[in-house]
Amino acid sequence: MANNLLKGKRGIIFGALDENSIAWKTALKVKEEGGSFTLTNAPIAMRMGKINELAKACDTEVISADATSEEDLKNLFVKSMELLGGKIDFVLHSIGMSPNIRKGKEYGDMNYDWYLKTIDISALSFHKILQTAEKLDAMNEWGSIVGLSYIAAQRSYPDYTDMAQAKAMLESIARSYGARFAKLKKVRVNTISQSPTKTTAGAGISGFDVFFDFANMMSPLGNATAEDCAAYIAVLFSDFTRMVTMQNLMHDGGFSSTGITQEMVDRLSK
Amino acid sequence: MANNLLKGKRGIIFGALDENSIAWKTALKVKEEGGSFTLTNAPIAMRMGKINELAKACDTEVISADATSEEDLKNLFVKSMELLGGKIDFVLHSIGMSPNIRKGKEYGDMNYDWYLKTIDISALSFHKILQTAEKLDAMNEWGSIVGLSYIAAQRSYPDYTDMAQAKAMLESIARSYGARFAKLKKVRVNTISQSPTKTTAGAGISGFDVFFDFANMMSPLGNATAEDCAAYIAVLFSDFTRMVTMQNLMHDGGFSSTGITQEMVDRLSK
Amino acid sequence: MANNLLKGKRGIIFGALDENSIAWKTALKVKEEGGSFTLTNAPIAMRMGKINELAKACDTEVISADATSEEDLKNLFVKSMELLGGKIDFVLHSIGMSPNIRKGKEYGDMNYDWYLKTIDISALSFHKILQTAEKLDAMNEWGSIVGLSYIAAQRSYPDYTDMAQAKAMLESIARSYGARFAKLKKVRVNTISQSPTKTTAGAGISGFDVFFDFANMMSPLGNATAEDCAAYIAVLFSDFTRMVTMQNLMHDGGFSSTGITQEMVDRLSK
Amino acid sequence: MANNLLKGKRGIIFGALDENSIAWKTALKVKEEGGSFTLTNAPIAMRMGKINELAKACDTEVISADATSEEDLKNLFVKSMELLGGKIDFVLHSIGMSPNIRKGKEYGDMNYDWYLKTIDISALSFHKILQTAEKLDAMNEWGSIVGLSYIAAQRSYPDYTDMAQAKAMLESIARSYGARFAKLKKVRVNTISQSPTKTTAGAGISGFDVFFDFANMMSPLGNATAEDCAAYIAVLFSDFTRMVTMQNLMHDGGFSSTGITQEMVDRLSK
Repeated sequence: MANNLLKGKRGIIFGALDENSIAWKTALKVKEEGGSFTLTNAPIAMRMGKINELAKACDTEVISADATSEEDLKNLFVKSMELLGGKIDFVLHSIGMSPNIRKGKEYGDMNYDWYLKTIDISALSFHKILQTAEKLDAMNEWGSIVGLSYIAAQRSYPDYTDMAQAKAMLESIARSYGARFAKLKKVRVNTISQSPTKTTAGAGISGFDVFFDFANMMSPLGNATAEDCAAYIAVLFSDFTRMVTMQNLMHDGGFSSTGITQEMVDRLSK
Repeated sequence: MANNLLKGKRGIIFGALDENSIAWKTALKVKEEGGSFTLTNAPIAMRMGKINELAKACDTEVISADATSEEDLKNLFVKSMELLGGKIDFVLHSIGMSPNIRKGKEYGDMNYDWYLKTIDISALSFHKILQTAEKLDAMNEWGSIVGLSYIAAQRSYPDYTDMAQAKAMLESIARSYGARFAKLKKVRVNTISQSPTKTTAGAGISGFDVFFDFANMMSPLGNATAEDCAAYIAVLFSDFTRMVTMQNLMHDGGFSSTGITQEMVDRLSK
Repeated sequence: MANNLLKGKRGIIFGALDENSIAWKTALKVKEEGGSFTLTNAPIAMRMGKINELAKACDTEVISADATSEEDLKNLFVKSMELLGGKIDFVLHSIGMSPNIRKGKEYGDMNYDWYLKTIDISALSFHKILQTAEKLDAMNEWGSIVGLSYIAAQRSYPDYTDMAQAKAMLESIARSYGARFAKLKKVRVNTISQSPTKTTAGAGISGFDVFFDFANMMSPLGNATAEDCAAYIAVLFSDFTRMVTMQNLMHDGGFSSTGITQEMVDRLSK
Repeated sequence: MANNLLKGKRGIIFGALDENSIAWKTALKVKEEGGSFTLTNAPIAMRMGKINELAKACDTEVISADATSEEDLKNLFVKSMELLGGKIDFVLHSIGMSPNIRKGKEYGDMNYDWYLKTIDISALSFHKILQTAEKLDAMNEWGSIVGLSYIAAQRSYPDYTDMAQAKAMLESIARSYGARFAKLKKVRVNTISQSPTKTTAGAGISGFDVFFDFANMMSPLGNATAEDCAAYIAVLFSDFTRMVTMQNLMHDGGFSSTGITQEMVDRLSK
């Protein structure tokens, strides 16, 4: 029961790794809603993942790009416009990686070269995408750009370490560049703060299962899934949300506005 | 180019007064998207407005109800379910009135009987609607309830006086009842914090034009219109936003995340 | 080791019931810091409590006042200025009562007369105090007015019912009246959002122990006590915080900025 | 009229450049309140500024340190503890510099090497200080660490460019490390979001005068000065605020909670 929400719209989707990825689900949803797009991921992720399968299913191509490289991004936008036959209406940034988390470093023992890598890959890449799009004049008016965030930007999680700062910075970029892109091209820029999601990346964070369950128990509607998120992204790309910009939108089953739930009270009362 | 976002969904729309009302535009949009609904307003507003015209255009009926009266609300829900042929999927609360503002009372000279009236009409009515719906078991699973708010809930405006408290309370009710209704029926409850809008009600607040222009100048996309808001409400009623609940959603062209704009700098530099 | 933070300052402290009250601890702290003040509570609370003991210890008097009565408040301010020998520098509002909670009503079965009583006693009383002070020109320049709030104003708690709305409204009044009083007399108005505290009032809320423990486990510094709160109030009354106004200040050992703690992870991993 | 708020406490103050600096005023205030401390700044800032004058006035020494260098920070903490005769109770981080702003780069034309320098100097340095303190076990229990921020972390300012992200990250570090340090040593970590302040650094941002005046007009108490800020920092270092942690504290005369002021209405009505 598609609604043609994105008929005629063209975009770029970053970060699809495998069928658990939010970006993967988003690609399928956007396709279903009539949008066309290119897919992209870092060379290494492409080797590990199965993004070509997804491209086939979506009748599109994959353009490899390191999202920290201005040159790669330029190439990506130019080729995408060629392939899709026009300027871009929507972009999804679903990119995050922390070498410190990968190597199991504690927050009191950060490696600062890696810390800056986390920032560069997970946050600054968002600015680079936006700046590239602006410089190439690649966006259509009333376009929509979305980045994926997490509530660790607002609240502390012991194992999320430097990714918390990356997400805070990502959300800040959405506000700053959103103001700029609104004036230039009426393009909106937002982040979605998504429930913990059982993706391949998410599952890599130690203690993920416990804070997934905690969030689920503390969200009156339960955790939002990757599919739910894909649907929400689709409406943010559509013309139904043209005046929503520079926002961090909680997509979390109510978690962010919950003090405690009866379920948690019962659990702790045992 | 309707998208059938609300095909098969049934609802109740409060607060359409005339063609400038957000509720009026919402009714037209929801109709366009395939939803069916009843309209309601207070007896006095019905005499002043032209809600029957709207009902005709939308092929529906108006059921008069004082939103502060539990009895009237019960009657409204029961009749709406009869007319629409089933339980309710969506409700729009677009109700606000302050006797203190009407009579031009300053914030340092509030009449407290009127103050409680403001609260009762503009905020408590939201709780009464929610409680009535619960008691009658009137909501379908995955239903969506939206109230209209304003950023005066977070920031001070000299002429908004006791309506600021009403809006703060309205948003709080959305969080509290949202938690409850999620558990009971997976119903979500949110508020939209809308740009100042040139409705008949909005225009009644003294100094409205100045703060309309101020907001417009301080919103990178400009102020969101009533039509924009109607579209946003439609997606919040749709199945694309099922996991968004207990949120106050800024629909304001970026105003809430703006410190200053170049336009304002230029204006003040003169 | 007093610091004379409030030497020469005069105030009014609402809401001391017994030695567990935050207002009680605040009175002792303010006294220690050199301030003088009157005490006040509702007639019924005075009969139940031991506020006269406190008055004796603080070398002051108790002036009975129903905080919902403009007349009583006027009398209170007039008499306080007489007794203290001048205008007022600080006021503590520590008042909250919900008949719905007392009678064990669920949030889906609110009695609306009682609901408005909750609002009147717990929130509107704050406005009445401010308006009375303004009308009598009772505040000194650079005075400081503090109300006590709770994070239920931002996040849902199943058993806090209509008090959540009262607290949201209280915080909103601080913003609105703070803007006004700043212009008139450079008086600041803030709320403190305090950890759950083992007062006689707090303990009356069902499930209090569980959410006290939950908050304690989820606050990196643990819950702030009533004594801690009294110290914080003292600095907010002092000249060290003159430019802090219209804020809701979290005094909670870090709870509000915590996503999860290791302690909670461990507890849930069992 | 000192209050001995910091009697017996030892600390380190980063970022005093000249008599307009917030850090400079803080040093004088802390001294007045009985605290002892070392001063530090980057080698280049030391050549430009007059920090040695301040050291003389405060009866202390300057220890040069590049706040991005772990080695320098280690040396700073070790020497400070030697000089002061014990562990550290308070730290002020007042450091910010953006090469992109210095070179007048627009936000759509960022140099990314410089961007990462902005982050490293203005935000990551805060983490490095905290991590150094932890590794050396240099903090006393109940110590207090404060960083200076700006509301550009929440709202967009056209000329603040990459510093907005640095401040968002700084505030995030306060939350993340605050959770950690609370558990380890009961140390609290907060940021103060200060009004635009006429410091030598602040004045370097283009259009500073306009947004200073705008903020002043939109703050019911007017902009907080550097002296006001120093006083607020002093109470945050004192034992009166022990349970306040992981917060971003608005110190802005009410700006952050203001929608519009009458003054602005009047100005725009002309």
